[in-house]
Amino acid sequence: MFTSLILPALKNPALSEMHDGAMVDLEGRRVAFSTDTYVVDPIFFPGGDIGDLAINGTVNDIAMCGATPLFLSVGLVLEEGFPLAHLERIVRSMASAAERADVMVVTGDTKVVPKGAADKIFVNTSGIGLIPEGIEISGDRAKPGDQIILSGTMADHGATILIQREGMHFESAVTSDTAPLNHMVRSMLSACPHVHVLRDPTRGGVGTALNEIAEKSKVGIRIFEDRIPVRDDVSGICELLGLDPLYIANEGKLLAFVRPEDTYDVLAAMKKDPCGAGACVIGEVLDDHPGRVYLETPIGGNRIVDMLTGEQLPRIC
Amino acid sequence: MFTSLILPALKNPALSEMHDGAMVDLEGRRVAFSTDTYVVDPIFFPGGDIGDLAINGTVNDIAMCGATPLFLSVGLVLEEGFPLAHLERIVRSMASAAERADVMVVTGDTKVVPKGAADKIFVNTSGIGLIPEGIEISGDRAKPGDQIILSGTMADHGATILIQREGMHFESAVTSDTAPLNHMVRSMLSACPHVHVLRDPTRGGVGTALNEIAEKSKVGIRIFEDRIPVRDDVSGICELLGLDPLYIANEGKLLAFVRPEDTYDVLAAMKKDPCGAGACVIGEVLDDHPGRVYLETPIGGNRIVDMLTGEQLPRIC
Repeated sequence: MFTSLILPALKNPALSEMHDGAMVDLEGRRVAFSTDTYVVDPIFFPGGDIGDLAINGTVNDIAMCGATPLFLSVGLVLEEGFPLAHLERIVRSMASAAERADVMVVTGDTKVVPKGAADKIFVNTSGIGLIPEGIEISGDRAKPGDQIILSGTMADHGATILIQREGMHFESAVTSDTAPLNHMVRSMLSACPHVHVLRDPTRGGVGTALNEIAEKSKVGIRIFEDRIPVRDDVSGICELLGLDPLYIANEGKLLAFVRPEDTYDVLAAMKKDPCGAGACVIGEVLDDHPGRVYLETPIGGNRIVDMLTGEQLPRIC
Repeated sequence: MFTSLILPALKNPALSEMHDGAMVDLEGRRVAFSTDTYVVDPIFFPGGDIGDLAINGTVNDIAMCGATPLFLSVGLVLEEGFPLAHLERIVRSMASAAERADVMVVTGDTKVVPKGAADKIFVNTSGIGLIPEGIEISGDRAKPGDQIILSGTMADHGATILIQREGMHFESAVTSDTAPLNHMVRSMLSACPHVHVLRDPTRGGVGTALNEIAEKSKVGIRIFEDRIPVRDDVSGICELLGLDPLYIANEGKLLAFVRPEDTYDVLAAMKKDPCGAGACVIGEVLDDHPGRVYLETPIGGNRIVDMLTGEQLPRIC
């Protein structure tokens, strides 16, 4: 939606880059600036709520530019009659997420709309961060030969929300993976400043993120099905609902594209962080088939991982 | 709401200042950072729409810090089935507002929620700007003797929305005053860098803005009823609806607190700008009655202009 309709109208060099966050110049300082609105339903779920989800989401969008997130804004839309106790819980959750990520919420706005004009609560977070000298990370920098690292199991957040929403009585301990990734990114970039691409595969999942990178970098991508970590219960939930975990949202995972010679260092840095304990190489960048993403199955078959067509799951984040 | 509940939880030095925008330090650069969500109903109204309102609003919040607004983000929440033609019109309106204000929309996000989960469209805009060297403007800097300038007629935006909403068949040409004030602010600060306070009296109107400044600066304020410009039709609409124009929203006006010796220069700079053609002195800062705002009536009476109690008009911006 933003790409097809809104981008052309607001066209300008920074916007056209289409990162998670924009990179702008403020008198010689490279600043990452990002915004995201959270409309997740339900607003409380195992592992988190709309409050920490919103803080972590914008922290991560900024971190994916290679930047250090510093300052956040919070814009709330509340439905009249929204329970104060819920609001307090969400605000506390935002405060502790901000503390964990080491960012400050410096400005905010609250609008209350009449009953029925919004569903409970929507949260917008925007944020700014500084990109350190020497860091050049963006979705168009994937190079043939790059190894593709995923920081842990896939589809946990989306599966958690879906179970809650469907009221499925599932014997599952799956929880949202919502978490700030900025500390892990800092460790990764200390270990290796030459990371080419960072991306958090949120809405649309790993499949969509890889397609966007393949397109922007004009490269092919191959991933290996048996190397992609997915929890058994998440895999089961997806099968039951007829969904492919490759397209299910993550809120505390990242994809990193690194030179082969840097893979070990980056992986080692990731594994030292709780958010990256399950990090592994899931694929590589090809020197042909630009714009295409292939999934190699354990028996050696190949299928194309397409862009998701039609509507994504609504209100997953 | 943000003040009483959210501020304490997210407590930090920058947030506690409670400006329209926060002022933060980015490696020695003073940056203004602001956010606002627009939920106005109706979304199209005489003089503007939710699109230019949202751009101008954040541009103005940044300008009220004395900063030059540079980069904006846009976060949209759309109700499923929202007409594409309306969205296109709103996006075009955002684009031309951004052009007029000379800012770039550099990042954005769109969420679509199911029918009934939001009313049509909500727009969040956040933005950043640079505060020039030597400029020190904030709500706690009003000083006894300061002259208080209002840039033009009061309550035009709120009255416009109210007429539309009530379906009043009024013979009135009143339109929203939505406009970017940053160019005028730049002229004002070129003429006089010693402006103490700038504030755009949006939600809650001039009355609320003056009360906030009186409280933060710990000063008394006296304004003169017969000096405050109000259009006759706006005054009539307010009377009919039982509302005080002092509390009705403006979207293209500002209040400036300046030293007596600077009043002429600032007024002259304002009057050269179309947004300030109707600028005039409406009152002064007292050396007693800290936190109080008085309105002097033409016959010499005095009444206290209180903070608005209870709910403000919903969805006025």
